[in-house]
Amino acid sequence: MSSLKERMALIEAQAARMGKETYHQTGRKATTPRMQYQQECSKVVTLEQAITRSGLKDGMTISFHHHFRGGDKVVNLVVDKLAEMGFKNLHLAASSLQDVHKPLIEHIKNGVITKISTSGLRGDLANEISRGLMEEPVIFRSHGGRGSAIAQGDLHIDVAFLGASSCDPLGNACGYSRSENAKSICGSLGYALPDAQYADKVIIVTDDLVHYPNTPNSISERDVDFVVEVDSVGDSSKIASGAIRDTKNPRDILLAQQAAKVIINSGYFKDGFSIQTGSGGASLAAVKFIREEMIKQGIKASFALGGITAHMVKLHEEGLIERLIDVQSFDKVAAMSLKDDSMHKEVSANEYASADEQGSATHYLDMVILSALEVDVNFNVNVLVGSDGIIRGAIGGHPDTAADSALSIIVCPLLRGRIPCVVDEVTTLITPGSTVDVVVTEYGIAVNPLRPEIAERLKAAGLNIVDIHSLKERAEKIIGHAAPLPFGDKVVGVVMNRDGSVLDVIKNIVD
Amino acid sequence: MSSLKERMALIEAQAARMGKETYHQTGRKATTPRMQYQQECSKVVTLEQAITRSGLKDGMTISFHHHFRGGDKVVNLVVDKLAEMGFKNLHLAASSLQDVHKPLIEHIKNGVITKISTSGLRGDLANEISRGLMEEPVIFRSHGGRGSAIAQGDLHIDVAFLGASSCDPLGNACGYSRSENAKSICGSLGYALPDAQYADKVIIVTDDLVHYPNTPNSISERDVDFVVEVDSVGDSSKIASGAIRDTKNPRDILLAQQAAKVIINSGYFKDGFSIQTGSGGASLAAVKFIREEMIKQGIKASFALGGITAHMVKLHEEGLIERLIDVQSFDKVAAMSLKDDSMHKEVSANEYASADEQGSATHYLDMVILSALEVDVNFNVNVLVGSDGIIRGAIGGHPDTAADSALSIIVCPLLRGRIPCVVDEVTTLITPGSTVDVVVTEYGIAVNPLRPEIAERLKAAGLNIVDIHSLKERAEKIIGHAAPLPFGDKVVGVVMNRDGSVLDVIKNIVD
Repeated sequence: MSSLKERMALIEAQAARMGKETYHQTGRKATTPRMQYQQECSKVVTLEQAITRSGLKDGMTISFHHHFRGGDKVVNLVVDKLAEMGFKNLHLAASSLQDVHKPLIEHIKNGVITKISTSGLRGDLANEISRGLMEEPVIFRSHGGRGSAIAQGDLHIDVAFLGASSCDPLGNACGYSRSENAKSICGSLGYALPDAQYADKVIIVTDDLVHYPNTPNSISERDVDFVVEVDSVGDSSKIASGAIRDTKNPRDILLAQQAAKVIINSGYFKDGFSIQTGSGGASLAAVKFIREEMIKQGIKASFALGGITAHMVKLHEEGLIERLIDVQSFDKVAAMSLKDDSMHKEVSANEYASADEQGSATHYLDMVILSALEVDVNFNVNVLVGSDGIIRGAIGGHPDTAADSALSIIVCPLLRGRIPCVVDEVTTLITPGSTVDVVVTEYGIAVNPLRPEIAERLKAAGLNIVDIHSLKERAEKIIGHAAPLPFGDKVVGVVMNRDGSVLDVIKNIVD
Repeated sequence: MSSLKERMALIEAQAARMGKETYHQTGRKATTPRMQYQQECSKVVTLEQAITRSGLKDGMTISFHHHFRGGDKVVNLVVDKLAEMGFKNLHLAASSLQDVHKPLIEHIKNGVITKISTSGLRGDLANEISRGLMEEPVIFRSHGGRGSAIAQGDLHIDVAFLGASSCDPLGNACGYSRSENAKSICGSLGYALPDAQYADKVIIVTDDLVHYPNTPNSISERDVDFVVEVDSVGDSSKIASGAIRDTKNPRDILLAQQAAKVIINSGYFKDGFSIQTGSGGASLAAVKFIREEMIKQGIKASFALGGITAHMVKLHEEGLIERLIDVQSFDKVAAMSLKDDSMHKEVSANEYASADEQGSATHYLDMVILSALEVDVNFNVNVLVGSDGIIRGAIGGHPDTAADSALSIIVCPLLRGRIPCVVDEVTTLITPGSTVDVVVTEYGIAVNPLRPEIAERLKAAGLNIVDIHSLKERAEKIIGHAAPLPFGDKVVGVVMNRDGSVLDVIKNIVD
């Protein structure tokens, strides 16, 4: 190489040809020591600082996940702070809301929250909203539908507030902690992952600020703007509350046995099958019967999907289920397994159940067991609104898994007390009948006429296959015709289909 | 709820208000059985089909990773096929190229490949390119620089061909396989991850097509368009070849001891420190000495970064290093550890070393040990072009880690045979002197005048601290002045700085 001057001329000519700058030697190291650099970049701030710096303004959309379910402390903590700071007219987009979020009633009355998007509502908040508390209807979406809506920009999140059981100062966050100071655990952060990926600003709220690197992580620092440390993000003893319970009810056990027989004789019960069970008592109990048959026939499953329970972890650890794909850990055993077992995989709501993603896991699901508040004679299902017209549930992954699985099985009693569960027309349409294959009741099993081959197989196995109209008539015979519900004229809720269209509306109830 | 007609009117009014469609009940299930759906969506095709369907055209950019290093079979396989199919004028953007890619010489001569971007070149291909084989200069980037260029759109990839040791039909891919038919293993796919994320089309080339779900996965099916099964993607016995070797050379061991002493006395050797070692024999040997001192002083590291070796895995398994952050597995032991140990984390080139990402791991690196072909009196380093002017190396993460770490240590002998390693001016500038802190030779240790505090600490520890000019003079005294290299006037290579500016040019060599 010739002189330095010639060399520089050559470099400059090359850079000009490429439309680039030439390098000027000003290393960070010479001017900024690493510790100072790190301090300047620090994301760890107070909740108030995080909110201010996020650029949140009145009218914007804030989001939350519900992985702590009844134990969640983040929604109330943050919305209290937002109220204190004087914010108004916010859109609260949660993956779901629970009884514990009752304080939102006051924030709605005070104009802090004027719009809600969620998968479900329960308790006093649901009750008040059903009676017309809000001017804007609540937008209900399935878990897969919410993921799609976020990815498509249909649900744009300005600032996400995501609770995490551990986080390092850069924002690497998990639904569990590996430190000695672990205060909480919720397992999968699957419903928070679309928010982390697509929200304009992401604030991690954690009760265990651990040292870098908090790897492996669920949420990557690449997606995180601020980290806020608080005393508690959630009461982990309540993650199994809400929808989840182990049944001792003899009717549920009977239903579970029938559902298991449907699965075993469906034609899909063979080596490498995949399964999801909902969170209802009967569908959980069915796992026990399926397990026995798997051992007897020497059949193994390739994966169990969805809300993962201790039941599924047990089968996985016994070698009966190869992989667990977990969008939501339904109890502490499942959450611990996600932390410790690398074959137990966390997925986002989109990877779980998006209708837009060719490869979302529901598309590879053989069988799903789901519960219902109501099924109608067209196999339409309602899991959101009670037969009294009051919102008391959540859409969850119900329509997503019903649509994409090879076989969807609804397990529900014919009657709950004086309330019929098989009806002429569901109060609210959540899961379209074209995607529902089998309805299991204690008075017989109805198969959707769209799936005659399933009916044939179940009949051949000696199961009691009945027409769904006969189930409805039986319920009517016992209970009589229900009086029409006292709905008013106000739309208090809108049910979105997973493709972004409007599936149904919920009207206010008048006492 | 009133009649069905009224209900539908209400739904339509609501949908209109929201600017949405109303749902029409046409479930997939009723029309397309799941197996048919899956077949229609199948990504598994032949290599030729994948190429055709990818929309690849003459003049476009194709990309590859180099995780199999000297054992790679994907580049030659794919480029042979592209030549056979008649493609011309392609830009080959690999994360690096090796001796094994010698067949590219013919493809360059035939006009199939007319542009190359890479981190390094070796063997006959490097030799020919140094002598002016190509019209367009080769663009050299560091690993972090390549990640940034891809993320910023400066390096746009049309079609990525990414080798994987396992992949399911949807495209979930890993650098290892958990199946009984595993044929290869390369460990981390870190350098392939930017390609998977940003390329227009992504083709996974695998020698073990496993059943769904191949989770946990490195590359997600969300990013994959086609899956191609081939006999072999690479010879895993060669992943430790190329740059990596265990030294028995007494001079290297002496250098390693000195480097270890620099680290131990640098002021950064304390509980929770972080470290990266390059792939040179001396820097690997230094780990042994550091380990002994860690045990003696009861000090543990928070993480080891970068190319992970069996040495680092050993320290991790002994509890001396809490986390491994792995962008590239430097041997089979490291690759197996990545597969089996959840505290051994895979990261992308960007998460590893991007200058654009506040939180890329190099920013949190305390110390790095690196090698060099040449260091000059301004602490500039060359790791790419030999003192004979022939390209014979790779930039790798050298400038990335030097710039971002708190302490960068270059280990190199004063002389290699008759070739001086400490010179007046490096043949090619790869790592700017402002980012290089310490140079360790067998004749003494030079500390960059920008870091006087380091020099003080090392002097206090009794190390032989010398002026870098005295090292250069010593080399000159032994060898004499080197004759100027016989460079021609053609620019055969351009070295990009990690910020996207032009750092240096490489001219052709004339014999």
